[in-house]
Amino acid sequence: MPLPKLRSTLVVAVLGLLTALPAAAQWRNADAAIKYRQSAMALQNNHLGRLVAMTEGRVPFDAKVAAEQIEIISLLNKLQFTAFIDGSDKGNTRAKPEIWAEKDKFNAAIMKSQDDVNKLAAAGKTGNLDQIKAAVGEVGRSCKACHDNYQKPQQ
Amino acid sequence: MPLPKLRSTLVVAVLGLLTALPAAAQWRNADAAIKYRQSAMALQNNHLGRLVAMTEGRVPFDAKVAAEQIEIISLLNKLQFTAFIDGSDKGNTRAKPEIWAEKDKFNAAIMKSQDDVNKLAAAGKTGNLDQIKAAVGEVGRSCKACHDNYQKPQQ
Repeated sequence: MPLPKLRSTLVVAVLGLLTALPAAAQWRNADAAIKYRQSAMALQNNHLGRLVAMTEGRVPFDAKVAAEQIEIISLLNKLQFTAFIDGSDKGNTRAKPEIWAEKDKFNAAIMKSQDDVNKLAAAGKTGNLDQIKAAVGEVGRSCKACHDNYQKPQQ
Repeated sequence: MPLPKLRSTLVVAVLGLLTALPAAAQWRNADAAIKYRQSAMALQNNHLGRLVAMTEGRVPFDAKVAAEQIEIISLLNKLQFTAFIDGSDKGNTRAKPEIWAEKDKFNAAIMKSQDDVNKLAAAGKTGNLDQIKAAVGEVGRSCKACHDNYQKPQQ
């Protein structure tokens, strides 16, 4: 069974899953949601780093390994965005209140990120280093844009 | 395509991936490995909690949702155990030095955890609540045993 099919089916399944339960059943409180999204982002950042190490030539490129990294990134990207629940703007978080005050704009940023990750997944299917390199650059830019707009600076 | 096939193929792929690169290429330092495993455990704990909410009847049981939770748990379980790299016994961690001093015993505990998670995955395939309930109980016990043996108490 080819990996790309596997990945997209998993991501679709996870999306279904995460919208199937009410938020209250997913986190016991706002702090738990904050920890959850920070954990998903930390893992995602690590796996993006492994992919970029290959696209920047610091680690030999291996199309199979790249595709597997992209699979993990795709899942974590979906998971993180489920956890910006109402009330989780307070606590151990650098999330700006604009996330909840301008939900439509934040949702558009989520869609942009997921669209870029979907394009990365498509590039991963080709196994072509140049395409993966271009696509991961786009993902990096949408990560940065969202952090610039919606994350308070480190204290 | 049925989910169970998808899951096991993903987990096998990830295992291959994580053994394919040297540890140095995966974390920039010991602190990064510590943060990585803590993040994977936090996410895993959340998804185990969602599954247990169903097996304990606090949330209506849905075999498809349970199978998807188990898929996420299986992946995170593999990821967390990759990050106990040499030198990551020091820092912001409650990991006991025995993990590195008695590697054979710790590796046996990892195998036990992964074996229990594999059995949970098999139970997830059946869609049978009683089997999933029994299997998730075993997973919980192997989590607890490992924490009892290898995690320092909270300060």
